[in-house]
Amino acid sequence: MKSVETMIAEALAAGQTTLSEYDSKKILAEYGIPTTEDLLIDELAAAEQAAEQIGYPVVLKVCAAAAQHKTEQNLIELGIGNAVELKKAYDRLAPKARNLGGAILVQEMIRGSRELVAGLNRDAQFGPCVMFGLGGIFTEALGDVVFRVAPLSREDAREMTTDIKGAKILGGLRGLEPVHIDELSNCLQQLGQIAIDHPAVCEIDINPLIVRKGHPVAVDALIVLQEPQPPATTEKAVTGNLTKFFEPQSVAVIGASGTPHKAGNDVIQNILANEFEGRLYLVNPKGGEILGHRVYPSIQDLPEDIDQAIIILPARATPQAIRDCAARGAKTVVLAAGGFAEVDQQGEELQQATIQAIQDTGVRAIGPNTSGHTSTPHKFTSTFFPLGKVPRGNVSYIAQTGNFATHTMRYIMTAEHFGVARVLGMGNKLDVEESEVLEYYAQDPETQAIFIYLESFKKPRRFLEVAREVTRVKPVILLKGGATAEGSRAAVAHTAALASDDRIIDGALRQAGVVRIYDYSHLILAAKAISAMPLPQGNRVSLLAPSGAMLVCMTDLCHRRWGLEVPAFEEKTRRYLQDMSPPFIRMRNPVDIWPAATVSGVEFAYREGTEAVLKDANIDAVVMILMITDETGVPPLDFIIELAQRYPEKPLFVAFTGQKNHMDDAKAYLEPRGVPTFPLIEDPFEVLSILARCRQAMER
Amino acid sequence: MKSVETMIAEALAAGQTTLSEYDSKKILAEYGIPTTEDLLIDELAAAEQAAEQIGYPVVLKVCAAAAQHKTEQNLIELGIGNAVELKKAYDRLAPKARNLGGAILVQEMIRGSRELVAGLNRDAQFGPCVMFGLGGIFTEALGDVVFRVAPLSREDAREMTTDIKGAKILGGLRGLEPVHIDELSNCLQQLGQIAIDHPAVCEIDINPLIVRKGHPVAVDALIVLQEPQPPATTEKAVTGNLTKFFEPQSVAVIGASGTPHKAGNDVIQNILANEFEGRLYLVNPKGGEILGHRVYPSIQDLPEDIDQAIIILPARATPQAIRDCAARGAKTVVLAAGGFAEVDQQGEELQQATIQAIQDTGVRAIGPNTSGHTSTPHKFTSTFFPLGKVPRGNVSYIAQTGNFATHTMRYIMTAEHFGVARVLGMGNKLDVEESEVLEYYAQDPETQAIFIYLESFKKPRRFLEVAREVTRVKPVILLKGGATAEGSRAAVAHTAALASDDRIIDGALRQAGVVRIYDYSHLILAAKAISAMPLPQGNRVSLLAPSGAMLVCMTDLCHRRWGLEVPAFEEKTRRYLQDMSPPFIRMRNPVDIWPAATVSGVEFAYREGTEAVLKDANIDAVVMILMITDETGVPPLDFIIELAQRYPEKPLFVAFTGQKNHMDDAKAYLEPRGVPTFPLIEDPFEVLSILARCRQAMER
Repeated sequence: MKSVETMIAEALAAGQTTLSEYDSKKILAEYGIPTTEDLLIDELAAAEQAAEQIGYPVVLKVCAAAAQHKTEQNLIELGIGNAVELKKAYDRLAPKARNLGGAILVQEMIRGSRELVAGLNRDAQFGPCVMFGLGGIFTEALGDVVFRVAPLSREDAREMTTDIKGAKILGGLRGLEPVHIDELSNCLQQLGQIAIDHPAVCEIDINPLIVRKGHPVAVDALIVLQEPQPPATTEKAVTGNLTKFFEPQSVAVIGASGTPHKAGNDVIQNILANEFEGRLYLVNPKGGEILGHRVYPSIQDLPEDIDQAIIILPARATPQAIRDCAARGAKTVVLAAGGFAEVDQQGEELQQATIQAIQDTGVRAIGPNTSGHTSTPHKFTSTFFPLGKVPRGNVSYIAQTGNFATHTMRYIMTAEHFGVARVLGMGNKLDVEESEVLEYYAQDPETQAIFIYLESFKKPRRFLEVAREVTRVKPVILLKGGATAEGSRAAVAHTAALASDDRIIDGALRQAGVVRIYDYSHLILAAKAISAMPLPQGNRVSLLAPSGAMLVCMTDLCHRRWGLEVPAFEEKTRRYLQDMSPPFIRMRNPVDIWPAATVSGVEFAYREGTEAVLKDANIDAVVMILMITDETGVPPLDFIIELAQRYPEKPLFVAFTGQKNHMDDAKAYLEPRGVPTFPLIEDPFEVLSILARCRQAMER
Repeated sequence: MKSVETMIAEALAAGQTTLSEYDSKKILAEYGIPTTEDLLIDELAAAEQAAEQIGYPVVLKVCAAAAQHKTEQNLIELGIGNAVELKKAYDRLAPKARNLGGAILVQEMIRGSRELVAGLNRDAQFGPCVMFGLGGIFTEALGDVVFRVAPLSREDAREMTTDIKGAKILGGLRGLEPVHIDELSNCLQQLGQIAIDHPAVCEIDINPLIVRKGHPVAVDALIVLQEPQPPATTEKAVTGNLTKFFEPQSVAVIGASGTPHKAGNDVIQNILANEFEGRLYLVNPKGGEILGHRVYPSIQDLPEDIDQAIIILPARATPQAIRDCAARGAKTVVLAAGGFAEVDQQGEELQQATIQAIQDTGVRAIGPNTSGHTSTPHKFTSTFFPLGKVPRGNVSYIAQTGNFATHTMRYIMTAEHFGVARVLGMGNKLDVEESEVLEYYAQDPETQAIFIYLESFKKPRRFLEVAREVTRVKPVILLKGGATAEGSRAAVAHTAALASDDRIIDGALRQAGVVRIYDYSHLILAAKAISAMPLPQGNRVSLLAPSGAMLVCMTDLCHRRWGLEVPAFEEKTRRYLQDMSPPFIRMRNPVDIWPAATVSGVEFAYREGTEAVLKDANIDAVVMILMITDETGVPPLDFIIELAQRYPEKPLFVAFTGQKNHMDDAKAYLEPRGVPTFPLIEDPFEVLSILARCRQAMER
C-alpha cells in the first residue's frame, strides 16, 4: 500500500484539494481510526462481488475527490438489501461517478443510532485543532462541538467527550451500549497526530462517526489538502528576561515635563509618589529642574548608563530615542506614544521604524501605545495617569487595555481595598507580549494570582504552553475581549465551519487550565477575593442568610448557574445549629439565621453559626449574607475578622442585606482587615464559582 | 369505528392503564395527528398481505397494552424488505406478542433523519401540559424539550417550535425540507385538546415523531390512562375584592402594645409614620393609652364598626379574634402570628380552626405568618417591622417572603431611591393568594409594574389566566424560589419523566407573558429601573464608555447572554460622533467616548455623545458608563437629568468607572432625580435584558 506521505504528495501533484472518501479513510485507518469496510469498484460485477464479500445490506456511494456532501447531492444509496437493489443503485450512481472522474464505493451498512462528528482544522492562531461533537444534522442544528489544540494528551481527548452538552449520549442510555471512551479518545488524539505529521493536511471531517455497539466507526470522511505552508513564525521563548522592567535600578524619563497634567510630568509624580528607590533621571532639551530633579538636555548627557527608559515623546521621535537609550545601556524601554499602526498609514511606517530600532539595538520594549506598567514590590511605575502610590498586593494583571493603569485602577484603589504586585499594559505589543509576561509572573514570588485581559494572542501556542505550566501552581483568570461572530468564510468541511474563534479559544484555554471569564467586573471582584482569601479546596459551599427566600434563590443558582454544591452538613454541625435555633425551624445547609438572630441577637447567631459551618468537613467555602438594620442590630464586626483568621484555609465572603449606611461602614471596616465583601448577594457566589474552577485547573 | 370515548372506557373497564400503540394512534388520528399506516394482524398470511398493501420495507412490532419501550425490549424489527425477512421477523415476534396478550403490528417504514418528541402530561399544579422537543435518544441525552399549559393557542404551539434549543433542526438544513410548522403546531394543540376532552387520558407520548419530507408523522405512540379524577378544586375568581385591604377607612390593631420593639407597638408606629388618614383603633385588654391613642379593652368595645383588623396575637388566639372582628363589621383581617402549619401538628390544628373562622365569617384574610402589607397611596401599612414612612412609587410587590416588609425594604429605602405602590407579604396564604392580588394590581392605577417572589402557586391556572391579561398592559416579573431537582418519580412515559417543575413553570410563565428572573437582586434593580424609566421599545441598545475593553466586553455579552442588539447607528449619528472625536478613531456603536473626552472634556463628550445616541432611530435604550476621576474631571451631572427629561421615551441608565467617592455622590444625585445607576457595569444590561423581555411579552 502507498504510504500516507505518497498519497498526499500524489494528490497535490494532481492538483487535488481534497482526497476522496476512500483515500481519506485509508489515511485514517493508517492512524488506527476505525472505518467502515469499503471496496472501490468500477463495474457491476465487481460491485456484486464486493457486496457478497461485505455482506448485505450495503451502501453504494459515488467516490471521487470532488464528491462532497454526498447526501445533499444524492450521490448515495443506503440499505441495499440484495442484488436487484444493488443493480438499480449501481445503474443510477455509475454515470454520476464517471462524470466526477471517480468510481463506486461499496460499503458495509452501519447501524447505529448515535452519530458523532470529529474533525481537524488549522486555526490561524492556534494551528491544528481537533473537534468533537454531535454529528449528523445535529452538528449544524445544535453546534454542540468542542475543540482542543493538537497535540492532544489522553486527558485532553477524554475531556472533550465529557465537555459536550450532549455527553450523556455516550453513556448507556435507552439500552444502548456505552461508548468505548478509550477508542474515541484515541481517534481524537490521532486526528491531531495526522495534522502534526502532515503539514499538507489542512482539514479533516469525519461526519458521521457512528457508534456501533459502543465502538466509534468513521462512516464518511473527507481530507482537505493545502500546499504545505512555511512553518508559522516561531514562537520560541525570547531569551531576554523582563526583570529590568520590573526591578530597574536606574530609570530615565525621556520627555520629562515641568507642566502639570502632562504625561511627562505625571509619570515623574507617580514615580516619586511610589517612592522609587533607584536612581531617576529626567531628560528634556530645555534642561533645568523638575520637581526638585535636575533635567538633562539629552540622553547622551546622562551621568551613567541606565536600566530602563520611559519614552514619552511623540510617535515620530520614538525610533531615534530607542536608539539613543540603547546607546546609553538601556536594556528596557517603555513606549508611551500612541499614533502608530492603530491610527493611519504614517503611523504604520513609524511602527516599522520602531520595530527596526528595537531589533537593531536588542532592547526590550513595552508598547507603544501602552499606559505603562507598575511593580509595587519595587515601588516603581511607568504609568503616566496620576495614580499616586499604588497599594502593594499579591495579584498581577496583564492588560491589553490602559484601564488598569487609569480609571479601573483608580476604582480598585478607592473602592476595593486590595493591592497589586505587577501590572502591565500591553499596548501595541511590538516586542514584549503576553506569554512572556505570563512567564515572568509565573516565577514571580510576589504574584499569587494572574488576571489577564486580552483582545488578541500575539504568540498563541507559546501562550498556551506557558499557561499550561503556571496554572498548576497559580490561578490564571482570563477575559478575552473580541467579537463573538462565528467564522463566516465559506468552508468545505464542517469542522472549519464550526471553528469559530470563540469555540477554539474556549477549548484552548480549558486545555491550558486558564479559567475564562466574561464579566469585566469579575476582573476586579475575583482579584479582591483571591487577594484576601485562599482558593477553596472544592466547590462545596455553605451560606447563612436571614431569609429563606435568599437561601432558596442562591442555592438554586449554585446548582443552575455556578457549578457549586450546597451539601448536607456533618451531623455535629447540624445538631449545633439546631441547638442554637428555636425548635420549630429545621436547621440544615443553607442556614437560615433569622430565627437564631431574633432569639439570641445578630452577632451571636452569625458568629456561632458561621464558626460551626467553617468547621464542617463537608464545606469548602462560606458566604455570610449579613443583615444590618438599626432595628435588628448593628453588630460589632470583629468576630468576622477573627473567624477569617481562625480558619485561614477556607474562604469566607460577606454580602449584606439591610441598611445602606451600615453596609458601607461594614465594607470599609472588613475589607482592609482581610474579609472581602460584595455589592449584590449573587456576587460572592459568582466569584466562588471562578475560584472553584481555578482549583479544579490546579488539580487537573 | 369505536369512538374515542368508548375505546377509553373499554380499556379502563378491562383494567388497562395504557393503550396499545395501535389504539393510541387511532385516537391521535381521530384528532388529526398524522400517524404511520398500521395494520394489526395475528397470523403470518395476514402479515404478508398487510406488507404488500403497505409496501416494503415495513416494520413489525409487538402490539399490546403492556408493550412499552419496544426498542429496549427487542419487540421490534425494522426495515423488513421482503417476504422472507417478514416470515423470519414474524416467527420471532409472534410468540412474544402472544405472551403479552397482544398482536403484531405491520407498519410502514418511515425514513426521516429528524426525530422529534411530543407528549402530554398532567401536572399536579398546572393540569394538562403539552411537551415538544428533540426525540429519539436526544430526548434523554439533551432534555431539549419545552412545555405549555393546555389548551394551547396557535401562537403558543408555534412558540414551542422556536423555543427549543435545537429549533434549527426544523429548518431546511443540509438539503432537508423545512418542517411544516402549521402541521406540527396543530399536533401540539390537538394533544392538549385530547386531555381536555378526556380526563382519563393521563399521559401521551409520541416518540418518535419523525419528519418525513417536512411532514411530522407519529411513528410510535403511547397513551396512559387513569380513572378520571374529580375535577381539581375550582380556581374561580373570588368574588370579594381587596380594596378594603389597600384602602381601609377604619383599622383596628388587635394586640396593640405599649412596649417598644414589640410587633404590636411597631405596627402602630408604622401606621402613624405613614400618616394614615383613616381612623385607627387600638385593642388590648389592659386598656389605657398608647402613643397618644386610647386603647379599647376588647373588640366589642370599639366605638364603630371597622374595615380592617390587624391581628397581632398568638396563633391560638387568632381564630376567635377573627370571629370577633367579623362581628364588628371587619371585611378584612391581617394575621401576623406565626406558629401555624409551618411549625407543628398543633399549629396545623390552629390553621384548620383559622380556616374555619374565615369561612364562617366570610372575612378576607392575609396570612397568617405574614409580615403585613403596605399601600403608600393610602398612606397605610400593616407591617410590624419598624420601617417608618415607606416612600410612594409606582411598582408593586407580591412576596411569599417577609423580606419586602423588612430588611429588603429597608435596603430599598436607604439605598435605591425608589418607592412602592403596594406590597403584600403572602404568609401562609390561607385565603388571599397571589392570583387575586395580581388581579388587584392589574387594575390598580397606582401600579405600573408588578414584581413577584413566589415559592408555590396556590391557584396555578387561575394565576396564569390573570397574568395572561395583565402582562399585555403592565410588566410582570417573577422570581420563583424553589428546588431545581428534576422530577424523580418513576414514570412510564418520557413526557412525565421530563416534566420537571421547573420546565413546566418556564413554559407556563412564558405562555402567560410573565418574565421569569433568577437573581434576587434583580427584584430590586429592575424595579428601580422601571420606576424611573419607560420600557424600551425593543432590544437595541447603545453604550458609551471611556474604554474599548469595556465596550468590547459589554457588546459581547449583549449578544452572548442578554439577548440585546448593539446595532449600527443612523449615518447622521455616526457623522456627528465622528465630528466631535479626533479623526484617528473610527466612531460607531458602541461609543468610545475617551478620545472626545480627552479633547473636549468629560461633560461635553458625554453630553453630546449621549444626546446624539438618544436621538438615533435605531436605538431603544442607552447605557452610559461614566468615568469620574479627579484627573479626568468630575463633571456637573445636570446634563444627564436634562437628557433623561428631553428623551422620556428612551431608558437611560448609568454605571460608573473611576473614583468611588464620586460614584457614590453621582448615585445620590442622579437617582432621586430620576436616573437609575448601577453598581457594576454589567448590571444596567442585565436589567435592560429583563425590560426588553417585558416589552416583548406586552406586544405578543
